[in-house]
Formats: sequence, structure tokens, C-alpha cells
Amino acid sequence: MSADYRKMWESLGVDLEAHDRLMGVLPPTYGNVYLSQENRPAGMEYFDFVISEVHGQRIVELQEHKAGGGKVVGAFCVFVPEEVVRAAGGICVGLCSGVEIGRTQAEKVLPRSICPLIKSFMGFKLSRVCPYFESCDMVVGETTCDGKKKAFEILNDYIPVHVMEIPQMRRDKDFALWRSEVRDFALAMEELTGNKITPESLLRSIKEVNGKRRALLRLSELRKNSPAPISGKDSLLIEQIAMYDDVERFTAQVNELCEELETRVKEGSGVQKPGDMRIIVSGTPMAVPNWKVPHIIETSGAVIVAEELCTGLRYFENTVAEDGGSLEQMIDAIARRYLEINCACFSPNRQRMERIVQLARDYRADGVIHVSLAFCDPYLIEANRVEKTLKENGIPVLTLETDYGQEDTGQLKTRIEAFLEMLGCGKKR
Amino acid sequence: MSADYRKMWESLGVDLEAHDRLMGVLPPTYGNVYLSQENRPAGMEYFDFVISEVHGQRIVELQEHKAGGGKVVGAFCVFVPEEVVRAAGGICVGLCSGVEIGRTQAEKVLPRSICPLIKSFMGFKLSRVCPYFESCDMVVGETTCDGKKKAFEILNDYIPVHVMEIPQMRRDKDFALWRSEVRDFALAMEELTGNKITPESLLRSIKEVNGKRRALLRLSELRKNSPAPISGKDSLLIEQIAMYDDVERFTAQVNELCEELETRVKEGSGVQKPGDMRIIVSGTPMAVPNWKVPHIIETSGAVIVAEELCTGLRYFENTVAEDGGSLEQMIDAIARRYLEINCACFSPNRQRMERIVQLARDYRADGVIHVSLAFCDPYLIEANRVEKTLKENGIPVLTLETDYGQEDTGQLKTRIEAFLEMLGCGKKR
Repeated sequence: MSADYRKMWESLGVDLEAHDRLMGVLPPTYGNVYLSQENRPAGMEYFDFVISEVHGQRIVELQEHKAGGGKVVGAFCVFVPEEVVRAAGGICVGLCSGVEIGRTQAEKVLPRSICPLIKSFMGFKLSRVCPYFESCDMVVGETTCDGKKKAFEILNDYIPVHVMEIPQMRRDKDFALWRSEVRDFALAMEELTGNKITPESLLRSIKEVNGKRRALLRLSELRKNSPAPISGKDSLLIEQIAMYDDVERFTAQVNELCEELETRVKEGSGVQKPGDMRIIVSGTPMAVPNWKVPHIIETSGAVIVAEELCTGLRYFENTVAEDGGSLEQMIDAIARRYLEINCACFSPNRQRMERIVQLARDYRADGVIHVSLAFCDPYLIEANRVEKTLKENGIPVLTLETDYGQEDTGQLKTRIEAFLEMLGCGKKR
Repeated sequence: MSADYRKMWESLGVDLEAHDRLMGVLPPTYGNVYLSQENRPAGMEYFDFVISEVHGQRIVELQEHKAGGGKVVGAFCVFVPEEVVRAAGGICVGLCSGVEIGRTQAEKVLPRSICPLIKSFMGFKLSRVCPYFESCDMVVGETTCDGKKKAFEILNDYIPVHVMEIPQMRRDKDFALWRSEVRDFALAMEELTGNKITPESLLRSIKEVNGKRRALLRLSELRKNSPAPISGKDSLLIEQIAMYDDVERFTAQVNELCEELETRVKEGSGVQKPGDMRIIVSGTPMAVPNWKVPHIIETSGAVIVAEELCTGLRYFENTVAEDGGSLEQMIDAIARRYLEINCACFSPNRQRMERIVQLARDYRADGVIHVSLAFCDPYLIEANRVEKTLKENGIPVLTLETDYGQEDTGQLKTRIEAFLEMLGCGKKR
């Protein structure tokens, strides 16, 4: 990357030496996991470019936005309504990270046995390696899990954190609480940016973000076809990039890719080889560059056809109603859309169970692989419910627990291969 | 224990063989930890008796209550309002457990790396070793942590669970949600017991439970004296027994003990030896028979003067207003009292920080030992805030993480002794 970027990173307070080490790891990993794939759609070129410029071009754009008086808001969860940030003239970027970094620093303020995603974001902040983090004027936390909820209190020592309370059930009273949180968030965004949110600006941002979600859903729908026209790894990458790329450009690129994939579908071509199992991956979010399990799955005789993940369907399967109306009506519509997210924070969570069964049918999946991050109580424990529900519905399921290390790669591969083989035998019978 | 008890346990479905093994462990532990103490108050005799009859006499009482058509409700948290259970004619018993049991069974439905308290209650249920659990007509869960919240969904496969949603902040809108949860809980208790809760029955139960809390607070206040008139271990035991003993008898016994301790205070006698450090223990609840850390502390040159725990001050430091009025007014008063509990589920939790500082001053503590159970994200992460606050206030603090095993006893003792020695040096200077 260019010398100009180094200057920019330095001005952001990034620790250049540590950053060099991080950047040295990413390209080989990416080449190995992504560029080695056969028959990739040409439209992936844009997303390859985005990754090659992961701390470059997009950071320049954020800095330009800030130079013009704009604000940048970081988020760690798909519950943070990007529509509201944008309606106040802000840019919302996802800060979740899928790589172990700054562990020593993170463990000074956090317990050692904690979810790797949380340790990672704290490590990124404390070791100053993430130019996205360093570009943020505020981060928005939420209460989807104990680990994040309590870690945000500590993070607030280093950067202002606004925390949204996510209810733990989905009844009318929970909706009332959540709706009020969305309203308060709008006020917080107005205060941060100095811009009033108007019915016009909010409706525009609702439509923009809906556009992004619809493009992702269009991509997802195409994967119902057999052969699947695109790999799960490429789809996951696009879903990850959705969290921080420019909304309009990203939407256009995804739609362009979909046109190419539609041609593939018409021609009956794709990435799924004969005999490949069709798998749905479900569980905890997979942040860049956490492609470990999808890579193992797709190099073991399977294609992933859907991600029941926050970096996946949970992010885009629902849109906000575009009826417009008053600001309050739109806040209502936003609150409703977000409370439909099938997060394991809800108890009980039958809606997620039903959704996974439905997805397995709609995407003609041969099986579901449930992947939880270590120490992630919500998804790790809910895996028991997922397993129970899928078995009751005759859908094969494999549950895995993993972290950001590579030590368990061999073991994971053995278990995944055995599962896929079992699925293959079941199909032949 | 008598043969009649065995028959009773059998009729409850208890696995007698596994139960024998459990009961074989308890008396030697108890003898070693409790009966070895010097200069114990005579009033401890009752509580020793209660423990010697832990699965005997009290279970007989519960069975008699049930034989008369009464219901027994189990709880895992000090947020469950005992007043409401009693007002509907039910008996509320605490089911938290401080011993590793039924691990193999528990790990079939739960992740291996999970809070030992949660694994323990699931283990007790699945291996059918706890006559309290087996006496329950319903258990009441809550959403204070991810682990319990999600485990209750699984527990509900084996026994009906009513879950109360605890908000994660303490603003007006959170109170509104919580108040509604208390109201719904009252309806659930009416449905379970078939008894109407009346203003009279609710006021009576408020006064009864307040009586218990006041007796415990009276005991606690006496420990502000130097020398402390009673050990922390004995106090903890009483606080643990508070969760399941008969309310009126227990209250009378605690008050009787307090009279004895008042005499001790007047005479200037007690259990604290010259040079003993005065310690406040803070953190996660310690359920019977989890006396490990208090035992180490009190055999290393210190006396514990207060427990900032759920099995401690959090359980009794506040009472419900006794103004009476309508049912709705009393529900309001109950909801207000319970939302003041300084649980780490709240974010941020400045109120708990301020409280610990205040306690250290009021109880003339030389230091605070913060003890978290392994994998307990709320308390483990909040330990960082406790440490920060106490240090800012010049109060020495030691933070520990442990589980229900005995493997770390030596290591804990070394760290605790070093901390106490450091406190002693500070005092001499």
C-alpha cells in the first residue's frame, strides 16, 4: 500500500509496526482461501479489490467525510440501525474482527477466557491497529451478550460508547423498550453530528439501506439454485464487506454480480461440483478474516448455500417498511424490523429454530453446520436447541465450537469430512 | 439420616446411590470448615442442625406443605420476589448449588466451558440428586446472565420454568418493564397455586420477608464492630440457609443469635484475633457448600466482615416499603426494591461501585477480595471496574477467579496470604 496510507495511519494514531505485522498476514491468507477458488464469478473482482484496500481506500473516504465535518460511528452488532446514523449524516462502520490481535493488552482489562471476538476488538483498540476504530467519533454498543455489555464499560475509557439496550424477549413491553432505545439513539446521533434527522433524511436512508439488504437478499436467493452459482466463502466475504463499504457503491456492485450469477443460473453453471453437499452455516458471526470453517467446509466436498449468521441472513433478510409518514412512524418501522433479528439473545428463541428449518428447506440444504465461538454462551447453549429442532425435523446437523486460532483446523476438518460423508451416504441410499 | 428420609427421597425420584455419594462428602467438609472454628457463638447450633438435616427435616416440611395442596417454587436468583410466592401460599426455595455434580449429564446438554453454578444446577436436575429440586412444582428463572437465560430453555424440558426478564439498565423505561414482569409473575403464581393474591396476603408476606432481611441486616451491622463477633464463614452459612429455610423460624433464630452477638460486642469479645485483617468478600454468589475461598481467607489471618454477594448483602440490604395500599401499589414497591439489587447484570453499574466503597468504609475493612466464578462474564469483567474504583479510593483489592474444584486451593492460599501480608505491612507503617 502506498506511502500516503502510512502517513494517514500515523495521523490516526495507528501503531505502524503492529499494523505492518497484521497486514503481512492478511494477503497470504486471502490468497490461500479466496484466490485459489475455481470458477469464481468475474464480479468478485470488486470485492477482492476492497479487501486488498481494506485499510486504504475506504479509510481515505472516511477521512474525507470527517474533513467535511462528518462523523463516523462504529458498531459491533447488526442491531445498530445504520439508517439512523445515515439520516443524521453519519457513516456507520462495523468494527467486529475475526483475528487474534493485541491479546496481551486485551487481557490486562478482560478475563482470559472470553469470546475471541470481544478480546479481538479490545485488542485492536488497545494496541491501536485498526484505522476504522481510530476513525470513529463514537462507537455504539448493545446488550446482546454479557461479554460485550460489560466490555463496553471498559471500552468507554478509551472511546465514547453509546449503549443500546436490546430486550431479551419479544413481547409488546419489550418492543416498547426497544422502540424507545431507537428513539434515544436518534437523539444521540443528532447530538453527535449536529444534524437534525428529518422525515426526508430518514426515509432516504431507510431506502438506501433497504437497497443494500435487497441486493444481498437477491444474491442469497440465487444460491437456492443447484448448482450454486457462487461459493459460500465469496458470499460471506460480500456479507462481511457490507458492514463497512460505501452503501451505494456496494449495492451497485452486488447487483452487478447478481446479473452475472443469473446468467450462470440460466446456463446451469456454478461452483457446486457433482456430489457436493449443500450446507447451511449457522451460529455466531464470522468477522473478517475469520474464514476458517467455511474454507474447511468448501474444501471438503461441499458448498455453503446460506449463512444463518449476523454476517449473513440475519443482517439482510428483513427490510424496514418504506411507508414513510412521520419521524415517529419511521422509528417504529425501524424498531420493528430490528426486533425480528434472530439473535440468540432472545429467550426462548423458537423463531430462530423455525427459521433454520425453513432455510434448510428453501435452500435445499443437505445439512446444517452450527458454529459457535468459544465462550459465547448465547449461541453455544442455543446450539442444543438447534440440534434438537433440526433432528426432530429430520435435518442432519453438526455442532462445532472454535476460536480464532488455527490449532483446531485438523480436528475440525476430520469432523466436517465425517459429517459430509455421512450426508453423502444418506443421499445415495 | 433416617430410613424414613430414604423412603421420601425415593418417592421424589431421587437417585439414592448418587445421593449417598453426595451426602458422604458434605459432613467431613462441614466438620473441617465449620466445626473446627474457635469461639463460635452458641446460636450457631441451630444452623449446624439445619445443615445436618439439609435434605431431611426441611424436605419433610416441603412435602407436608405439598400434601396440603401447597406449591413449592424453586429459584436461582435473588431477583425472584419471595414475597409474591408466599402471598399466593407457595414456598420459595433457592436451588443454586456450590458443588460439582452430575457433570457428565450436564455436559450432554450444556457446553463444557460454562459457569460451574449453572453446570451444577443442570447436573443436579439431570442426575436427580437434589430433593429440593425434585420437590419443586415450578422453577423461576431470570435473565441476569446469558448462561442462565439460555440454560433455562433447556431446563424447561425437565421441569416447568417461568422466566422473569431482568432489564439491563435502571432507567424509568427499565423499571416499567421490570414492574410488569413482577405483575406477570404474580399472575403466574396465582395460576400455579390456585390462590388469589390479596392486598392482605401480600402485605403480610412483605412484612415476613422484610423481617428475615432485617434480622440478617442486624447480624451484618454487628459485624461492623471490632473485634468482629462472628466469623464470615458462619455469616455466609446463615445467608445461604436464608434461601431455603422456613422464614419465621429462621428469622427468630437469627434474631436470637444477634442477641448473643450483642452481648459479645458489649464485652468486647469476638472471633477476630489481634492482627487479623478485616476483609469484605465481593463478587459472584457462593452457594452451599462453596465455602472454599472464605475458609482460606479466615485461616490465613483475616476475618470476613461482609459479603457483597447475592448470598450476602445484595439479598437483604434493602427492604420493601410497608406502606401497604392497593395490590398495584405493593407490586410497585416490590419492583422498586428488587431493581436496587447491585447485580453485575446492570450496565453501567456505578451504583455497585459506590456501594462497595461505602461498605469498605462502614465495615472498617482493610481490603476487598473480589471472587468470580470461572466463565461468569458479568462479574469477571466487572472486576476490572471494581478494581479501578477501589484503587481510586485507596482501598486495597485482590481479584480472584475460581470454580468448584479444589485443585486451585494452594494457589489461592498463596495469593490470599500475600495480599493479607501486604495489608498488614500497610497497617504497621
